[in-house]
Amino acid sequence: MRLLLVNPNISTAVTALIRVEAERAAAPGTELVMATAGYGFEYIETRLESIVAAAAILEVIAEHTADGTSGIDGVLVAAFGDPGMPGLKEIADVPVIGVSEAALCLAALQGQRISIIAISERITGWYRDCVERFGLAGRLASIRSLGTPLRDVASVQHDFRAALVNLAREAVQVDGADVLILAGAPLAGLAREVLDEIDVPVVDGVGAGVRLLESLVGLSATNPRRQRRGTSAPPPTKPRHGLSAAVTAALVARQEEVSS
Amino acid sequence: MRLLLVNPNISTAVTALIRVEAERAAAPGTELVMATAGYGFEYIETRLESIVAAAAILEVIAEHTADGTSGIDGVLVAAFGDPGMPGLKEIADVPVIGVSEAALCLAALQGQRISIIAISERITGWYRDCVERFGLAGRLASIRSLGTPLRDVASVQHDFRAALVNLAREAVQVDGADVLILAGAPLAGLAREVLDEIDVPVVDGVGAGVRLLESLVGLSATNPRRQRRGTSAPPPTKPRHGLSAAVTAALVARQEEVSS
Amino acid sequence: MRLLLVNPNISTAVTALIRVEAERAAAPGTELVMATAGYGFEYIETRLESIVAAAAILEVIAEHTADGTSGIDGVLVAAFGDPGMPGLKEIADVPVIGVSEAALCLAALQGQRISIIAISERITGWYRDCVERFGLAGRLASIRSLGTPLRDVASVQHDFRAALVNLAREAVQVDGADVLILAGAPLAGLAREVLDEIDVPVVDGVGAGVRLLESLVGLSATNPRRQRRGTSAPPPTKPRHGLSAAVTAALVARQEEVSS
Amino acid sequence: MRLLLVNPNISTAVTALIRVEAERAAAPGTELVMATAGYGFEYIETRLESIVAAAAILEVIAEHTADGTSGIDGVLVAAFGDPGMPGLKEIADVPVIGVSEAALCLAALQGQRISIIAISERITGWYRDCVERFGLAGRLASIRSLGTPLRDVASVQHDFRAALVNLAREAVQVDGADVLILAGAPLAGLAREVLDEIDVPVVDGVGAGVRLLESLVGLSATNPRRQRRGTSAPPPTKPRHGLSAAVTAALVARQEEVSS
Amino acid sequence: MRLLLVNPNISTAVTALIRVEAERAAAPGTELVMATAGYGFEYIETRLESIVAAAAILEVIAEHTADGTSGIDGVLVAAFGDPGMPGLKEIADVPVIGVSEAALCLAALQGQRISIIAISERITGWYRDCVERFGLAGRLASIRSLGTPLRDVASVQHDFRAALVNLAREAVQVDGADVLILAGAPLAGLAREVLDEIDVPVVDGVGAGVRLLESLVGLSATNPRRQRRGTSAPPPTKPRHGLSAAVTAALVARQEEVSS
Amino acid sequence: MRLLLVNPNISTAVTALIRVEAERAAAPGTELVMATAGYGFEYIETRLESIVAAAAILEVIAEHTADGTSGIDGVLVAAFGDPGMPGLKEIADVPVIGVSEAALCLAALQGQRISIIAISERITGWYRDCVERFGLAGRLASIRSLGTPLRDVASVQHDFRAALVNLAREAVQVDGADVLILAGAPLAGLAREVLDEIDVPVVDGVGAGVRLLESLVGLSATNPRRQRRGTSAPPPTKPRHGLSAAVTAALVARQEEVSS
Repeated sequence: MRLLLVNPNISTAVTALIRVEAERAAAPGTELVMATAGYGFEYIETRLESIVAAAAILEVIAEHTADGTSGIDGVLVAAFGDPGMPGLKEIADVPVIGVSEAALCLAALQGQRISIIAISERITGWYRDCVERFGLAGRLASIRSLGTPLRDVASVQHDFRAALVNLAREAVQVDGADVLILAGAPLAGLAREVLDEIDVPVVDGVGAGVRLLESLVGLSATNPRRQRRGTSAPPPTKPRHGLSAAVTAALVARQEEVSS
Repeated sequence: MRLLLVNPNISTAVTALIRVEAERAAAPGTELVMATAGYGFEYIETRLESIVAAAAILEVIAEHTADGTSGIDGVLVAAFGDPGMPGLKEIADVPVIGVSEAALCLAALQGQRISIIAISERITGWYRDCVERFGLAGRLASIRSLGTPLRDVASVQHDFRAALVNLAREAVQVDGADVLILAGAPLAGLAREVLDEIDVPVVDGVGAGVRLLESLVGLSATNPRRQRRGTSAPPPTKPRHGLSAAVTAALVARQEEVSS
Repeated sequence: MRLLLVNPNISTAVTALIRVEAERAAAPGTELVMATAGYGFEYIETRLESIVAAAAILEVIAEHTADGTSGIDGVLVAAFGDPGMPGLKEIADVPVIGVSEAALCLAALQGQRISIIAISERITGWYRDCVERFGLAGRLASIRSLGTPLRDVASVQHDFRAALVNLAREAVQVDGADVLILAGAPLAGLAREVLDEIDVPVVDGVGAGVRLLESLVGLSATNPRRQRRGTSAPPPTKPRHGLSAAVTAALVARQEEVSS
Repeated sequence: MRLLLVNPNISTAVTALIRVEAERAAAPGTELVMATAGYGFEYIETRLESIVAAAAILEVIAEHTADGTSGIDGVLVAAFGDPGMPGLKEIADVPVIGVSEAALCLAALQGQRISIIAISERITGWYRDCVERFGLAGRLASIRSLGTPLRDVASVQHDFRAALVNLAREAVQVDGADVLILAGAPLAGLAREVLDEIDVPVVDGVGAGVRLLESLVGLSATNPRRQRRGTSAPPPTKPRHGLSAAVTAALVARQEEVSS
Repeated sequence: MRLLLVNPNISTAVTALIRVEAERAAAPGTELVMATAGYGFEYIETRLESIVAAAAILEVIAEHTADGTSGIDGVLVAAFGDPGMPGLKEIADVPVIGVSEAALCLAALQGQRISIIAISERITGWYRDCVERFGLAGRLASIRSLGTPLRDVASVQHDFRAALVNLAREAVQVDGADVLILAGAPLAGLAREVLDEIDVPVVDGVGAGVRLLESLVGLSATNPRRQRRGTSAPPPTKPRHGLSAAVTAALVARQEEVSS
Repeated sequence: MRLLLVNPNISTAVTALIRVEAERAAAPGTELVMATAGYGFEYIETRLESIVAAAAILEVIAEHTADGTSGIDGVLVAAFGDPGMPGLKEIADVPVIGVSEAALCLAALQGQRISIIAISERITGWYRDCVERFGLAGRLASIRSLGTPLRDVASVQHDFRAALVNLAREAVQVDGADVLILAGAPLAGLAREVLDEIDVPVVDGVGAGVRLLESLVGLSATNPRRQRRGTSAPPPTKPRHGLSAAVTAALVARQEEVSS
């Protein structure tokens, strides 16, 4: 199984963090293809930044899947907030999921009320959108966040380790969380570092994403995806202009597949 | 007052339809600047297409507002479904609104339950997202749509006039709608054509958008917009790469303004 | 264009506050007809008081519109909480809107989460009803209110200026509001006084109401309101007794118009 | 125990229907005081009509409770849709409830999903408001209604008996209702006539209202109502003008009681 | 009228508390049959404990109703949280209700926003489930609870009287509750003790439950329950194994009754 | 990895169906331990039946995990509707999940709106409860069900194959489903049989359950579950009576573990 992991941020240091955690989570036979957005921001914390990121991810996915020879079996969008979701599911004939929706699923299986720990106050509005969009806002206990500006996104999990654990404990003790999500690719891997210090399960988005993508791909191996109708099917063919060669190729490939 | 109207589709014929209806709705002193997306699709009916459109609109807005000399007082995104909203509100120091949110507001002031008449079945999923995102899903009576492929998006309101009126009547009589929205820029202006044939008020998104944008700008003339906090404020400054000159300039301008 | 502004309170001092702000917001050609409730309370802060106010507003609207010669093009009910809404929309053949629904619309176009600043603790329960009734409760960040009894409703915006600004700041900083509404006719005009002190847009209900009413009337000029079905249509004809001459005349006029 | 039953309609024939069913439902020691609205409509089917009715009910309750000598222990507002609720709870020092909220409670105790059978299509919008206001919209299976104009509101339950039973069966078989409410004072008593023909429990609003009011009064006999805070407490004292002597007296009495 | 009151806890001391309050609330002609769960926990505060309790209550109800000779007219499940509801409604041909749903109904008739005062922090998650399941979560102001372990469940209302009153006051003053529920059978009767100290109505679940059950039974005396369809009807006949004789007999009796 | 799969029905033929599909879905290193409820019903279609099933599952889980020597790493409750969830999560120190919650997660990752295909009309009410309890009711397009009584639960997927495919197609074409769940253990394995005949992805609960349980266990291998607080932690220690030896042992084991 060959999975494409897209870091929607331009930080290759964060791509490296994602890779390490993804490798820990992946099953033996899983091959991970890492990619970093070709343009955009060091990290995504607003709705505007996610517009840019969604377009950049679309390019990356199209480049890796359009010609049908890359053998990609599934795609994980590895920024909490799931920029471009669920629209990006339309571009490929393989499962495309985000780390937020994956983390919300694994959290919801472990506890009734979920809190999210985030790296900046500004990011919380966009995260709330994401939970509402996925439909699980009724199970959200709280979103708590760091209040100080980050020095370096690649080291935030070390720089603010104590503060993050403290936020986690407040979510449990004050907000009544049964389960936590440490959100954001810059925190990839932190869950396993701090689990002894927290009294409820802690979900890491990257680990959750890899596992759920493997699940979907594994079940699809005998159940090939046939999204010929519904809102994850490819867009109907229509005049277009100015798209990149990769996006054009990916669209055409999907549309032909459905009309065949 | 100078308003920028962005057609997120690449069809200049649709831009012309939007202009005609916008001119009818605009107040005497309002100047309309029309713009068409530089790339994308003939019309937007899926979430994936709206990702492309959002990025294209961002470019158009940035080009028209970044240098601060264009004198744009407000921006209307003129595709039902409001691609890029509410994220696009972060890019400019003037109000940026979409035709869907404007139409929903004027509909909600006229009747308790709202139906939307749409030009394709596929588009309805994305429209539903839009209503849910804006928070008025509890007032949605139904979304009804044409079931046949369009020949030409620029003439859809004439080609399918009878079918659209029929959908409107079913929404009133079967679904219990108190007010209707004829949705989508290709239907701009149709509301005034068919109003004698329908027993409830009919809202045109372009007209609603122009009027509400004028309202916001007019009230802001004495109440300059000060989005220094909250999720419509400009994104915090951070490393970025590969953005267009216009988007970069627009971001920098907004960030400097807030930090000043 | 001739708009009727009804102050549902009996305080003519508040009517004067409303007039001043309405004149600032109105377009050049708009004529404002001011009216004050013939009976009731100095200000409305409970559901019971709003029952009395709704009946009093009904009389005022009927008196001004029943004979069809007054030339009223639209009606604005100028007490936050929108007493009598949406029922009052049934009484006239012109748009009838409330300042709360107007303010919620303009707020919702400017930010995702909305806070309301109110003049008494007791009033907040009724305001919450109003937001829920309009369907935007999912976007409410908070309702914050003064905690001390008012000396004089006509001077509350000056007596408590500092406290109100402080509540506004707490709504932004603690509750995460992206946009604020200064609620209640006694606060009409305060928004423009304090905008320099608050980091997000501030909506004034009276200004919003005048602008949105102008929008509806303006669009209706070419799109005459035809509420022949749905729940804003006039009530079906049936035996009645003891209504005032004005209300009877208004009802009869609307019913004849629909059956014609 | 002495209960005031207010018919918000002006039809004394409907008052008589209410009385008959109320007497069947009441406990041995309960004395029923019947009152009919002094002005208004033959029956209430729109939001506008309910504004008039709410004010008329307020007068009736005030007349019967203001001087404190009438010995009224509780008040039942006997029109489905509960005009004036929950505001009317503020006017008296005894429980004031509506037949809709009572019927919804007894229905919710008997089945998970509830359908309402109504006497006119127009009335259904207002009924839906009522269910939403009470907070049980999530348990509503459907509202089904007669489609033909009524000849005589006092005989509607006989004139349309077969059609009403048919609507009830469709609600069960098509909409999945576990329990039904036959709604509207004109249908008072019909439930016991038709129960053999319907496969789920059927709730009569008048019977439910009398029983739940007896329950509240009975429990309050040892637990005197002390609504000194919260939104059912009397409105704070403030200048007022033009209210009837009865309403003024009732307000003053409640306000003095709380401040004592 | 003969009512079965089931204490789902194994504590006979709590059964005695329930009996005392039930006798105070019951109408003169009502006979109370008390029963205590045959196995389980001293009190129920988690979802897991409620699984055990639901099965134990099922046995008790079946034992008392299966042979049709006991003359039980209705059943009250007397643990807040309503273990086994609404499933237990399927087992008997008489009304089966819980104290939580009854208390929520009587609270909802007295005030718009409801707070629940609970005896342990852990119990609050299960109580929240219960309110959501009944459909009134939109009216919940808060659930406040004691934070210290209980010494003796039978004396908790005396041991913690002051703390409970304090929680009640905070719910009113901080959370904006219009009405309170003192939750849990161990608090049965406390409401009447403390009512002078609290400014809003206080609902006792046992009293509410007895009264509402009497109401349902009383109305059913002329309106025999006919749950032949819908989700409170008996389960369809199918192979079963290992059920107790009482549960088997109760099921068979109900199924025969429906098929007859 | 050793997983316990509990069939909450008493049908060993259904247990065999579950095993076959589970083996197809499981990863190479996964060992499956099958168990069938010791008592109960041939299949579960009502809330009452699920009370019995929940208690029976509790026994099975306790028997397999109480002594800590069985090496069970996770538990899957294999009846759609998830009887006993989420309460059963409290009984074991390993993940305990249900096939419904697992299927809802994998469906929600593949499409925005979900339909469920069920084997009986009666079962749909209970399934709806389950979706609402999990919090994803906002994404439910429909629940469609067979309307004829089953001959044999073990052969229902063959007996009604054509009817089930037809229901699936209607869910897509009429209800707008983007993804389907074939619900109920008796349909285990049908998804892979019919996928060529349906235009959207089809989720099998057993396959989804095995994969998600493997995911949770796999991630927990380095992230041992520490549910010491929150509502999935073991119930606080308190007097108990009459529980089976296995349940007692399981409770004691968990409580000791937390207090250690």
